[in-house]
Amino acid sequence: MKIKVINPNTTESMTEKIGAAARGVAAQGTTIVATSPAMGPVSIEGHYDEAVSVLGLLEEIRTGEADGCDGYVIACFGDPGLLAAREIARGPVLGIAEAAMHAASMIAAGFTIVTTLERTRGIARQLVEAYGMARLCRNIRATDLAVLDLEREGSAARITIVEECRRALKEDHADAIVLGCAGMADLSAEIAREIGAPVVEGVTAAVKLVEALVGLGLQTSKIGELAFPLPKAYRGAVRGFAPGGA
Amino acid sequence: MKIKVINPNTTESMTEKIGAAARGVAAQGTTIVATSPAMGPVSIEGHYDEAVSVLGLLEEIRTGEADGCDGYVIACFGDPGLLAAREIARGPVLGIAEAAMHAASMIAAGFTIVTTLERTRGIARQLVEAYGMARLCRNIRATDLAVLDLEREGSAARITIVEECRRALKEDHADAIVLGCAGMADLSAEIAREIGAPVVEGVTAAVKLVEALVGLGLQTSKIGELAFPLPKAYRGAVRGFAPGGA
Amino acid sequence: MKIKVINPNTTESMTEKIGAAARGVAAQGTTIVATSPAMGPVSIEGHYDEAVSVLGLLEEIRTGEADGCDGYVIACFGDPGLLAAREIARGPVLGIAEAAMHAASMIAAGFTIVTTLERTRGIARQLVEAYGMARLCRNIRATDLAVLDLEREGSAARITIVEECRRALKEDHADAIVLGCAGMADLSAEIAREIGAPVVEGVTAAVKLVEALVGLGLQTSKIGELAFPLPKAYRGAVRGFAPGGA
Amino acid sequence: MKIKVINPNTTESMTEKIGAAARGVAAQGTTIVATSPAMGPVSIEGHYDEAVSVLGLLEEIRTGEADGCDGYVIACFGDPGLLAAREIARGPVLGIAEAAMHAASMIAAGFTIVTTLERTRGIARQLVEAYGMARLCRNIRATDLAVLDLEREGSAARITIVEECRRALKEDHADAIVLGCAGMADLSAEIAREIGAPVVEGVTAAVKLVEALVGLGLQTSKIGELAFPLPKAYRGAVRGFAPGGA
Amino acid sequence: MKIKVINPNTTESMTEKIGAAARGVAAQGTTIVATSPAMGPVSIEGHYDEAVSVLGLLEEIRTGEADGCDGYVIACFGDPGLLAAREIARGPVLGIAEAAMHAASMIAAGFTIVTTLERTRGIARQLVEAYGMARLCRNIRATDLAVLDLEREGSAARITIVEECRRALKEDHADAIVLGCAGMADLSAEIAREIGAPVVEGVTAAVKLVEALVGLGLQTSKIGELAFPLPKAYRGAVRGFAPGGA
Amino acid sequence: MKIKVINPNTTESMTEKIGAAARGVAAQGTTIVATSPAMGPVSIEGHYDEAVSVLGLLEEIRTGEADGCDGYVIACFGDPGLLAAREIARGPVLGIAEAAMHAASMIAAGFTIVTTLERTRGIARQLVEAYGMARLCRNIRATDLAVLDLEREGSAARITIVEECRRALKEDHADAIVLGCAGMADLSAEIAREIGAPVVEGVTAAVKLVEALVGLGLQTSKIGELAFPLPKAYRGAVRGFAPGGA
Repeated sequence: MKIKVINPNTTESMTEKIGAAARGVAAQGTTIVATSPAMGPVSIEGHYDEAVSVLGLLEEIRTGEADGCDGYVIACFGDPGLLAAREIARGPVLGIAEAAMHAASMIAAGFTIVTTLERTRGIARQLVEAYGMARLCRNIRATDLAVLDLEREGSAARITIVEECRRALKEDHADAIVLGCAGMADLSAEIAREIGAPVVEGVTAAVKLVEALVGLGLQTSKIGELAFPLPKAYRGAVRGFAPGGA
Repeated sequence: MKIKVINPNTTESMTEKIGAAARGVAAQGTTIVATSPAMGPVSIEGHYDEAVSVLGLLEEIRTGEADGCDGYVIACFGDPGLLAAREIARGPVLGIAEAAMHAASMIAAGFTIVTTLERTRGIARQLVEAYGMARLCRNIRATDLAVLDLEREGSAARITIVEECRRALKEDHADAIVLGCAGMADLSAEIAREIGAPVVEGVTAAVKLVEALVGLGLQTSKIGELAFPLPKAYRGAVRGFAPGGA
Repeated sequence: MKIKVINPNTTESMTEKIGAAARGVAAQGTTIVATSPAMGPVSIEGHYDEAVSVLGLLEEIRTGEADGCDGYVIACFGDPGLLAAREIARGPVLGIAEAAMHAASMIAAGFTIVTTLERTRGIARQLVEAYGMARLCRNIRATDLAVLDLEREGSAARITIVEECRRALKEDHADAIVLGCAGMADLSAEIAREIGAPVVEGVTAAVKLVEALVGLGLQTSKIGELAFPLPKAYRGAVRGFAPGGA
Repeated sequence: MKIKVINPNTTESMTEKIGAAARGVAAQGTTIVATSPAMGPVSIEGHYDEAVSVLGLLEEIRTGEADGCDGYVIACFGDPGLLAAREIARGPVLGIAEAAMHAASMIAAGFTIVTTLERTRGIARQLVEAYGMARLCRNIRATDLAVLDLEREGSAARITIVEECRRALKEDHADAIVLGCAGMADLSAEIAREIGAPVVEGVTAAVKLVEALVGLGLQTSKIGELAFPLPKAYRGAVRGFAPGGA
Repeated sequence: MKIKVINPNTTESMTEKIGAAARGVAAQGTTIVATSPAMGPVSIEGHYDEAVSVLGLLEEIRTGEADGCDGYVIACFGDPGLLAAREIARGPVLGIAEAAMHAASMIAAGFTIVTTLERTRGIARQLVEAYGMARLCRNIRATDLAVLDLEREGSAARITIVEECRRALKEDHADAIVLGCAGMADLSAEIAREIGAPVVEGVTAAVKLVEALVGLGLQTSKIGELAFPLPKAYRGAVRGFAPGGA
Repeated sequence: MKIKVINPNTTESMTEKIGAAARGVAAQGTTIVATSPAMGPVSIEGHYDEAVSVLGLLEEIRTGEADGCDGYVIACFGDPGLLAAREIARGPVLGIAEAAMHAASMIAAGFTIVTTLERTRGIARQLVEAYGMARLCRNIRATDLAVLDLEREGSAARITIVEECRRALKEDHADAIVLGCAGMADLSAEIAREIGAPVVEGVTAAVKLVEALVGLGLQTSKIGELAFPLPKAYRGAVRGFAPGGA
């Protein structure tokens, strides 16, 4: 089974960290292809960053289809381009926010999301709604961390996150934590030990859920909203993205 | 006041129709700039079409800011890129689905959306939820019309739509219709006459609502989720989209 | 275009302030008729005040229809009698809570309502639900101000309100403020300057939205729930209110 | 215990029927005072009828308080003026829609409301939402019956209603019926026998629920939203309604 | 009328307290049978305790049916086994959480639940959702009290509860309290006096609501989800529970 | 990894079918223990059957813990006893309704549940709500099949189910099917082929999701609502179920 894990930003160190996390949980027989698009923002911290990142992400899905990938992970907590990606993929496509929240819902009675910058809170809130998690999500806690702070050696990011997780357990009546950034992919085990509660991280969760879906023989439904795009012309710089070679 | 009305697809005849509709309702003193991006799909009928169209749309917002536009209309019923556009615009940005539903909520007790292809139903459903319109939206009715069917001379599109509107009033207990495609921008008055109920069309509604917001001195909030994007590098083909010249 | 702005309480100074605010944003060609019913409470601060105020309000709508008004604004933040008024009006009728929340939803990601007495909190909460704004309304903040405190020269009302608005931005993660009383109609511009965020005020918002709807040729739907009342007899002191002269 | 049952319309025959139904279920020791205001519509079939009826209704609550009533029933399925009435009453005040839906929720898994004219559907829908009954209400079925059709001897109203109830059980997966008009107060037992399912009627349900609340020593809370209205002046024809003699 | 009040735990002192509270509000002519199953936990403080308690509870309903009981109260705030009990009972069956919340909704604008251990918060939250009370429930406040703390003479339980109730009125904007444990059945009147707001207690509320439903001639619907269980074999230790003697 | 798959009814043929389905998808290295309690109903078709089945189910979890099981599947579409089971298990516990709906949400835009008897519709509806799936569940379709009809050789059950699935795709705008009974565990692949859309079956889905969670090192949270039951005495026939040996 080949699973492509796509970091929609273009920061290589993060892609490597994500790839390592993915491989760390992958089953024997699963090949992880961790990539980052050739084009896009160095980090994704808002709707605009997300919107521009989607083109590179879709390019990666398209090449993944050509390469015979069985499933995909979109490794950014805003799950950018998720439904568009599903339209052009045969196999399952999971966002890491989606995966983390679904996994948390199965082992906890209520979780808090601990994320990066305050300005991304709205994105998390919309995903909570979209995935039907409003009854389980106790709070969304923004730290003052930028995404790339998580990449800097010696930053105090981990300590900040642990403290926020502790506050979540105590003040929000949460009994699990969902980590709200792909850049935290290497932190979950350590934080779980420190706080004594389950910590769900999206990259790893998404890999295992894609494995599960592929193992069930389930692929993205192709008879309605998520059917392959209708063949038509695209104009200008995005001409090459036109579906069906039109 | 200068309002830029952006048709996110690249079909010129539709842009012209949209521009005419916009001008038809604009106040004295309002200048309508109706455009279509240089790049993008010829029609938007799904998540993938939408996602790829956003880049061209954002380009239009960026040039609009440089040109001193006071507000924007995204003239596609899926409201693609709405929140991303708001991040980079000072003035108000409205989607036509958003505008039509809000306007309908003020003059009717319940509306039905009459839209194009079945596969776009899910997009409309998500917008109904996102805009808090679930209590007012009685039904979403897909016709079998493709977007470009609305551009073909002599097509039976108008008749099909009128029939669906009549069914909506009778079977859904709706007392108003929301037209679910920018390509229907020229049809609302005629259909309203034929069915004897208010028909709300998004392009025209959005123009008047942007005028209203600008007239109130209201601009997009810049202190939180919709603040200007953080300056950072973008890589590759989208390099030019990087915020803040980084 | 003639828009009648009805202050449902009987305090003249407030009616004048409301009228001035309405005229301050009205388009050229819009005539604002600001009135207050002959009968009713001097201020509206609860369900009972509201319920009794509705009779005078409906009287104003009835005379407005006779006078050829094109639309109406109900200038009390509880939007009393809104649906009843819509039944007897041809043109659009907007409540100021409705107008302010809809306008805020178009330029902000989340707003807090700053209102007067604690006992009115429930009224605001019900409107937030009714208008589908639960996902956007971050908080409702009651000050200890009575409605008529806003009319007293030299009162500290403005300072109290500004402080509450500042707390809303900081503590509620709101990025805009909705002012929760028609008596604040003269304060929005000043407060917006002080707090550096959009402040949406309902009287002005409603005037511009009625202008927009009238400009679109939209009138209240007359085929269902909001159709003209059925002709029938009314008995006793309210006999004159009987629909259709029955 | 003295319970005042107020028919907010002015049709005496309906008041008598309502009074008889109320007395038919009242406990020993409960006195039923069935009245109708001196002023108001002969039937209530929309928001406007409702709004005008409230003044007479509140007058009846006020005299009820002076007469030492222990609780009140508002005997119109739109529950007009409910919260206003609660503000001026010490004891419990129940609407018949409220009472019927709450009672139905305790003995059935899902109910359908069978009501009168199509135009009242929206009122029922809003009450379903307001009372938290959306998960239980399977459907609202309007017959073509006007309220006063239920008063005419020899009308086919009962047959029409029974047929609609049968359809509700079969098509809506409802397992109980809520009758949607006070004018049906005499029909519930007979219909229940005919259709073989529980039929909940609001006048009788409200009388028993008021008895229950009074028996528990529960009165309307007076510390917040439902506290007695603030003393203040009312002007003009409604001067006499001013709270606190102001 | 014979009402069986079942304490699903096996602590006799609590059953006696519950029985006394029930008799204290029962109407003349109502016989209260207060019992506790022969098998089950000594207190119920979680899902597991609840699940195991249900067998004994159902046994009590079965014998109640044989004894001609007209209705039942499940006297544990988690309402364990409510729908199962309804399937095998002809008359109404009420849970005390259900009864208390419904009663509170009729005399207050918003209530806070004051309950025992933190770990039971989730059970209360699910009932709030299930009964459609999310709009009315301002907060759920867990004290650190175990259920059996309420049975110990000289415990400070009452003082702890009163303090939490006071905080609820002040901090939650609640105007009534719902007591969240059957072990508080003797406390409501006293607490209401101390805090000056309505305090709704479930055992007493449920007794009066069952009386009301029986007085209306309403029984549990037997045509759908709550119909008598299908006759079939049960195996092993629960063989005797098989429906229909199979 | 050892996963215990518990069929909460006592029909051996169904347990065998469930075990075979589970083994059919299990990963190499996963041991499936398929069991059925010694006590309980032969089929589960309502709340009462469910409630009585829980005791046997919990017994199986308890022995599973002693045997070192890593996770559990509750193989009945009502997910009976799920939260109670989670309290006493260290590893993950999944219900098959939960698993199927979550899996479906990842590969489809909207699913219909096809289940057995009409009387179980309400159970499915409550699970849809509880799992946050209301936006995705297009319909619940009951066939007239009893659970044990699925066990009879030569029954027309499969044909009936396929027909209902076809109607779901066409009439409900669903793009995937969720099978609503553990007795359908052997049918999903065949039905998927026949209808040309994904068919999600809960037993297999749950096995793969438990594998995924265990692979992530996630266990049921033990710090709040799902913590191990408090040690206490249980009385009578259920004495042996007492937590903590009390």
